[in-house]
Amino acid sequence: MIPTGSLIQLVSPKGKRYTMILEEEKELHTHDGLIPLNQVCHMDFGQEVTTHLGRKYLVLKPTLYDLLKNVQRKTQIIYPKDIGYILLKLGIAPGGEVLEAGSGSGSLTMALAWYIGDQGRVHSFERRSEFVELCSRNLERVGLKDRVRFHDRDIEQGFGLTDIPAGFIDVRTPWDYLDQLVAALQNGAPAGFLLPTMNQVEWLLRAMESASCTDMEVLEILVRPYKPVADRLRPQDRMVAHTGYLVFCRIMK
Amino acid sequence: MIPTGSLIQLVSPKGKRYTMILEEEKELHTHDGLIPLNQVCHMDFGQEVTTHLGRKYLVLKPTLYDLLKNVQRKTQIIYPKDIGYILLKLGIAPGGEVLEAGSGSGSLTMALAWYIGDQGRVHSFERRSEFVELCSRNLERVGLKDRVRFHDRDIEQGFGLTDIPAGFIDVRTPWDYLDQLVAALQNGAPAGFLLPTMNQVEWLLRAMESASCTDMEVLEILVRPYKPVADRLRPQDRMVAHTGYLVFCRIMK
Amino acid sequence: MIPTGSLIQLVSPKGKRYTMILEEEKELHTHDGLIPLNQVCHMDFGQEVTTHLGRKYLVLKPTLYDLLKNVQRKTQIIYPKDIGYILLKLGIAPGGEVLEAGSGSGSLTMALAWYIGDQGRVHSFERRSEFVELCSRNLERVGLKDRVRFHDRDIEQGFGLTDIPAGFIDVRTPWDYLDQLVAALQNGAPAGFLLPTMNQVEWLLRAMESASCTDMEVLEILVRPYKPVADRLRPQDRMVAHTGYLVFCRIMK
Amino acid sequence: MIPTGSLIQLVSPKGKRYTMILEEEKELHTHDGLIPLNQVCHMDFGQEVTTHLGRKYLVLKPTLYDLLKNVQRKTQIIYPKDIGYILLKLGIAPGGEVLEAGSGSGSLTMALAWYIGDQGRVHSFERRSEFVELCSRNLERVGLKDRVRFHDRDIEQGFGLTDIPAGFIDVRTPWDYLDQLVAALQNGAPAGFLLPTMNQVEWLLRAMESASCTDMEVLEILVRPYKPVADRLRPQDRMVAHTGYLVFCRIMK
Repeated sequence: MIPTGSLIQLVSPKGKRYTMILEEEKELHTHDGLIPLNQVCHMDFGQEVTTHLGRKYLVLKPTLYDLLKNVQRKTQIIYPKDIGYILLKLGIAPGGEVLEAGSGSGSLTMALAWYIGDQGRVHSFERRSEFVELCSRNLERVGLKDRVRFHDRDIEQGFGLTDIPAGFIDVRTPWDYLDQLVAALQNGAPAGFLLPTMNQVEWLLRAMESASCTDMEVLEILVRPYKPVADRLRPQDRMVAHTGYLVFCRIMK
Repeated sequence: MIPTGSLIQLVSPKGKRYTMILEEEKELHTHDGLIPLNQVCHMDFGQEVTTHLGRKYLVLKPTLYDLLKNVQRKTQIIYPKDIGYILLKLGIAPGGEVLEAGSGSGSLTMALAWYIGDQGRVHSFERRSEFVELCSRNLERVGLKDRVRFHDRDIEQGFGLTDIPAGFIDVRTPWDYLDQLVAALQNGAPAGFLLPTMNQVEWLLRAMESASCTDMEVLEILVRPYKPVADRLRPQDRMVAHTGYLVFCRIMK
Repeated sequence: MIPTGSLIQLVSPKGKRYTMILEEEKELHTHDGLIPLNQVCHMDFGQEVTTHLGRKYLVLKPTLYDLLKNVQRKTQIIYPKDIGYILLKLGIAPGGEVLEAGSGSGSLTMALAWYIGDQGRVHSFERRSEFVELCSRNLERVGLKDRVRFHDRDIEQGFGLTDIPAGFIDVRTPWDYLDQLVAALQNGAPAGFLLPTMNQVEWLLRAMESASCTDMEVLEILVRPYKPVADRLRPQDRMVAHTGYLVFCRIMK
Repeated sequence: MIPTGSLIQLVSPKGKRYTMILEEEKELHTHDGLIPLNQVCHMDFGQEVTTHLGRKYLVLKPTLYDLLKNVQRKTQIIYPKDIGYILLKLGIAPGGEVLEAGSGSGSLTMALAWYIGDQGRVHSFERRSEFVELCSRNLERVGLKDRVRFHDRDIEQGFGLTDIPAGFIDVRTPWDYLDQLVAALQNGAPAGFLLPTMNQVEWLLRAMESASCTDMEVLEILVRPYKPVADRLRPQDRMVAHTGYLVFCRIMK
């Protein structure tokens, strides 16, 4: 039986997906009718629950990938292909601590919060209150909000933190905040950046050369999907060709 | 100060990297001379320790990416670009449980163990004892061995487990073990596969069509590295063009 | 002044392109009004002609790339990225001779006819009369039809030609016609194939192993377009990810 | 029988390739012994000629791709993948005229000369005499030198030509010669550029915005080779990841 407080995903007959925390008194309102969630409390993952109109919804345990696909967005989000790599490069681990700026819609925030576990801490810096609210809602819906502390600061004045073991910066002009980042991070800490244009990569690299940064790496990650048909195996006709360039370095004061 | 029991990485003047658990009585023997680790116990990350011959080694906190780069290998390993994506697709989370076959050199095993945390459990299936030993040594060196249970079974006879929430199969003929995988996993669980050739993808997809699998996805991930030079920004001349195809599905019994 | 008989391209204010042979008595009917082509006969390329409604159309000399973009299609066409490479690999040259099957919409036919010059000969094999007509019309519109001879034959019975110096096969089951191709080509001749799926590549390679083929090559060509903006240089968001796999070999009887 | 004056390629048992014009009195000296070419005059393509030491060399008709692979180089050459596309975009055709700067080792020069035919004309601009010599030798060896006219001019002072229908610029700072290029080309003419770095693309685009250029396009072409093995179909492990960015435009005075 699925314990209350678990993250669940309900999949409609047409493939529409609803992600939520399982609470006994809650109800889900869908185009196919109402689902009282207390029914789900007596089921296992992989079973089907029936709406009051008789439609069957599949109950799944969502993966982080599923959650990221369902993030409500008002900004360009960071994609799973990039997030997976960022996690490894930043040394994110259960119980760890990390800072990020800006929060945006919160897709990276969510992944950091997920892997840092309930003993960890994500410091998320965002000045625009609408994005703090959006990001908070996205985190709350999947039960990860308690792991994130939002900081409403002008980071040009510094992050107001020290000795943080890793940082990720996803803002338009990261070169303006390099010294502040260096001050906030541990010596030797890994830092990462996401930038849509080559010009920004150029400006960031130039700033890094005179800041306390070493081991610079620039790369991009491409996912090429195939049609999953055994008899006619071939890539999809079109693919996402660009999300952004990733830049990584180590802080060396 | 770095606590004993921490994972540390020592970087030589020439860039050679040594990863180990910090223990007070241990010594590291290098071409540049001896480093008594008790010296490191009084330092912070980002500082330098001096060998008895006067060479300076940088002390860093290794990221998972660093650890994966230093895995001792006798097999083709799974690359960070693929590992990051696999973690998200399988829903790996602190406190979770997952099965994988085979262990190989243990790069994926290490990543699963890292993110599943000290409350989680990785079940790793491998018949060749030399790989179990290699994988164990790689895990032990980074303090993650306790999170992994090795199973020496012929998985054609089944995994001997049930209700596991996720699985990853990296063997030459995964289609031979699909029914066994279905039996071992929870209903609705995500499963993943890595396959070097298109022929294998074809055979696996064909087997999946008649097994309890839905939501099949096939993809490949490419990392394109750039030369990190602000004034002459361009991709590296050559790149890794292929490691393997990733196949994902959901088990639906 | 542009000589009559020249290939011209008229570009509307909205970017719509019309390609034709310049003939003094012809008129072009557009949504912007009528253009009597005898006006164009007194102009140079790069100038503008005015419709009877006063709209200005730019007169350009079309490149082969322009012509290929304007091919009327009922089938998947072969893309410029692939065509350019095919020309070089097949040794196409002014005055040469080449066979292709099938003609399809005629994009490759057009490129072969273009480069083989007015002393050369393209033998194009196509059984479906609607495609022969479509391909003919496409060639006629750009003045290249005389260089192409259409053959309405069942190529399973052979091509009815010998000693042809190069061949390109773009049909669904090319392995059915390998022996016939070998018979039609010169010893040592280069041959090429375009195939959308990996399964077809597998079958073709298997057939080649027992046919008179050496130096097999398999490859794909990707074009990645960028946004041409100096201040925000970055790849387009999406790209064509797959058209087909190219296979090349030498015939060695 | 192969006519004297034909371009031939002799392939050694070990795959070493020799390209030359067939002349009756010439001899080829190889590590496998001497081949008097008059023997080849009595053969057909695809047959084998025997050295005086009894080794068999295959006689092939080289494709342009073969010739380009055998260009003697002292510079980075332009690759076939890029050349094929450039030909189509520039509207190169038998009987045409084109200018290029600089000549370099002459791989593009060779392709332009090949397709422009014996009625066409390539104007190649190169100041360094060692490259003019190298390029000449490469062209002479394949019988295409007569189609190319070398210009030893400082192109900052202009190309000294007008009304040329197409141009390709492969120099380090093409933005320095844009106005000169505009003056040399026909109105409406297509122009192309090859640039290794993103910074150069940025500078060129910026210069184009204030010069007489329209329809700017920026792209790169990737060739991904596969292992041609039917039972184990997969991409090669490594590939060429970058040669240069291609930029195209139309001149609009």
